[in-house]
Amino acid sequence: MSTNHGEPYKVYLSEAEIPQQFYNVRADMATDHAPILHPGTLQPVTLADLEPIFCAELARQELNDRDRLIDIPEQVLDFYRMYRPSPLIRAYYLEKALDTPAKIFYKYEGGNTSGSHKLNSAIAQAFYAKDQGLTGLTTETGAGQWGTAMSMACVYFGLKLDVFMVKVSYEQKPYRKIIMHTYGADIYASPSNTTEVGRKMLADDPASLGSLGTAISEAVERAVTSEGRRYVLGSVLNQVLMHQSIIGLEAKAALEKLGEYPDILIGCAGGGSNLGGLMAPFMQDRLAGQRAPHFIAVEPASCPSMTRGRFAYDFCDLGQVTPLAKMYTLGHAFMPSANHAGGLRYHGMSPILSQLYHDGYLDEARAVEQTSVFEAAVTFARAEGTLPAPESAHAVRVAIDEALRCKQSGEAKTILFGLTGNGTLDLAAYSSYLDGTMSDYIPTDADLARSFQSIPRLPGIQEGFADESQG
Amino acid sequence: MSTNHGEPYKVYLSEAEIPQQFYNVRADMATDHAPILHPGTLQPVTLADLEPIFCAELARQELNDRDRLIDIPEQVLDFYRMYRPSPLIRAYYLEKALDTPAKIFYKYEGGNTSGSHKLNSAIAQAFYAKDQGLTGLTTETGAGQWGTAMSMACVYFGLKLDVFMVKVSYEQKPYRKIIMHTYGADIYASPSNTTEVGRKMLADDPASLGSLGTAISEAVERAVTSEGRRYVLGSVLNQVLMHQSIIGLEAKAALEKLGEYPDILIGCAGGGSNLGGLMAPFMQDRLAGQRAPHFIAVEPASCPSMTRGRFAYDFCDLGQVTPLAKMYTLGHAFMPSANHAGGLRYHGMSPILSQLYHDGYLDEARAVEQTSVFEAAVTFARAEGTLPAPESAHAVRVAIDEALRCKQSGEAKTILFGLTGNGTLDLAAYSSYLDGTMSDYIPTDADLARSFQSIPRLPGIQEGFADESQG
Repeated sequence: MSTNHGEPYKVYLSEAEIPQQFYNVRADMATDHAPILHPGTLQPVTLADLEPIFCAELARQELNDRDRLIDIPEQVLDFYRMYRPSPLIRAYYLEKALDTPAKIFYKYEGGNTSGSHKLNSAIAQAFYAKDQGLTGLTTETGAGQWGTAMSMACVYFGLKLDVFMVKVSYEQKPYRKIIMHTYGADIYASPSNTTEVGRKMLADDPASLGSLGTAISEAVERAVTSEGRRYVLGSVLNQVLMHQSIIGLEAKAALEKLGEYPDILIGCAGGGSNLGGLMAPFMQDRLAGQRAPHFIAVEPASCPSMTRGRFAYDFCDLGQVTPLAKMYTLGHAFMPSANHAGGLRYHGMSPILSQLYHDGYLDEARAVEQTSVFEAAVTFARAEGTLPAPESAHAVRVAIDEALRCKQSGEAKTILFGLTGNGTLDLAAYSSYLDGTMSDYIPTDADLARSFQSIPRLPGIQEGFADESQG
Repeated sequence: MSTNHGEPYKVYLSEAEIPQQFYNVRADMATDHAPILHPGTLQPVTLADLEPIFCAELARQELNDRDRLIDIPEQVLDFYRMYRPSPLIRAYYLEKALDTPAKIFYKYEGGNTSGSHKLNSAIAQAFYAKDQGLTGLTTETGAGQWGTAMSMACVYFGLKLDVFMVKVSYEQKPYRKIIMHTYGADIYASPSNTTEVGRKMLADDPASLGSLGTAISEAVERAVTSEGRRYVLGSVLNQVLMHQSIIGLEAKAALEKLGEYPDILIGCAGGGSNLGGLMAPFMQDRLAGQRAPHFIAVEPASCPSMTRGRFAYDFCDLGQVTPLAKMYTLGHAFMPSANHAGGLRYHGMSPILSQLYHDGYLDEARAVEQTSVFEAAVTFARAEGTLPAPESAHAVRVAIDEALRCKQSGEAKTILFGLTGNGTLDLAAYSSYLDGTMSDYIPTDADLARSFQSIPRLPGIQEGFADESQG
């Protein structure tokens, strides 16, 4: 007898059912997020401010708070058809292993060669660059998923790509370098001596292992000092969340085919692109006052921007070359512990998600420790076959916790989570979990008080944030 | 305008359309392959000979030359539904990049976490072991795909697994060890000091880097000297080709939905499991005297069993503990050059494929050099997104060659090839190609004459093979 009682394990929409429009949740928000500010003038940024850095259409999308739906260009749809729709999978074997009455669904975005959902926004961003007549792009990457996705997208449209890769990842993840190189990108360990800001950081600390904030500063500098290039970013930005809405739109359509609607929706959150994308059409229901899931953002206890950060204006990068965004932040000088293996290392959070969380629409943020994340990852892998990326395993952890809670209460809730990527290039982290050398790290209040010092005091806008005691 | 002119890129059959029966091509062969011989008695092996080594049902399948169709057990179908049907993909962008009138289709088996088609047979073999009441299995692995697949299959059914991994791979591919460990298997670098045959090999050559033949010998010894264990093998055997027929059955059904039938069918061939599986239902057409594709087996020039080997009885392993099979072989003492990175390193070839090739039903074998294989792999990756496994890239090479031939002749042929796996854990090989340090290696006639010496002279069965000059 089959475990699935004749129901399908996987729902694949047809290629004709791929959404034709991105959904811009910002158009439906009760309170828009605070405007992002120019780092020099402290005035809300304008299109003219953004266009030297971003592709023109992406700059427009970044500032667009009115249009609910944006047509997906045909060339982008054409690429999506290579690897989308991604499957919505019922975790029958995980349910069985947990002996839970809950129904667990996951939207799996790790089936493409980049290994994650990042490709969804990468190909859109590369298209707009190509369409504008640019010759290349620059970006940064941490664990390497975004850099891989941008490499695939750029080679597809014949664009050059410089990737600044956080030095600690560059050294620990040689395979990520090679795969980006295979797709034609040039890779620099950040901080590098190829930019002004990189040379300054190396002068301050020659042994610096880098951070996303550092790498962003370098990539932006490279873009604005090169002919025909612009900068692209894989998370945090409004445009990225909008591109990633394709995840949620597909998931919702697939669930509708099954007659299902989630009671709980779970996503890991680093910069917020995956959770923002998965939740978008369900958040639309919430914002319209309709039935909606309980939304849970999951973050690492070692980089707890939503659960322990402040809702304040901060820079998006260490070098302070980017605009200021009002968001949950640990301070742009925050550096996650080197023993943190699970990604999601960004000091801030998407302004959209931050505002929704602040206003109570995003119900809950939960911080989890990495050994429990990997324990969940191994349980999931052995039951469902697929090896999760460490980032995605944060969502797996909470999905399992919620399913076990259902087991106790006897409630048959429907859980939807995002399995954003596969862990094939993260096996070193699995090894340290399996051999018992992985440890947990939770920053102390004193650690955070120090990093909060980097949150700027802005005369007339926000005062004294860096001086307040934590809490 | 879309590149695909409204046709789908990918055809996914529904889960209900997963084949319910394996196809046993042997039942339709005009001439059956020569019987496999017991290494002690030199008599055709019996079920009783095989049962101490193999699971009982698998031993029956190995000797079954009569039943055309074998029901797939429900528990195996249940697992297949987690990751099957695999997609049949039209390579629109590769066609465009090559500017060829050919239609190129590929059946992609690399979307599961094992990364290859090996999982199809692994789960069947694990099921029959569980069903027989065994507690564990033993096997060998070269590049690591088969070991990973068996690890996933064994943890699923709660079976223990010992994997003997060819030492050179064990040292070069740490990620493969970790992924098998994640799925609960125990891994030994072969030759190891945990078996008699391993200790003997180490005594003869302490620096031995191992070979598939060595690892097979160790795994068989471990199985027959342990309680409740049997040995499993991922290629070469009749049973494995039969399990892999699911690839061809799905591919044929998906092509039928598109109104297509291949003119050319291409598969890489190491032990023959992928090509045997992909070609099976099309070979059925050929054997029935109907329209059939031109079949091409692709092998590495550095391990050219079909193009330069002999059709003779030989041992399947270096330690001579396995039965003798009549097959194309380079001699069981053949060791591929250490600079060969592309898998497909086995000294022999499936007896079924060998017989079909000998009799002219399998039309052609072609040997290709590894730098041209990786050149094709990078072309494919940049056009189609997916990074091919080096093994699979052998088929990509010939598919591209055939498509370019169509461009010259103007013929719009339909090409089908097997993309058996993804290359995510083979990036070190990509790196050596990209940085120009990869070289080709073709054994000389004198090299092969030496390895042919290990082909046994069998009184009254085959004489003098080891003494003949090559040709």
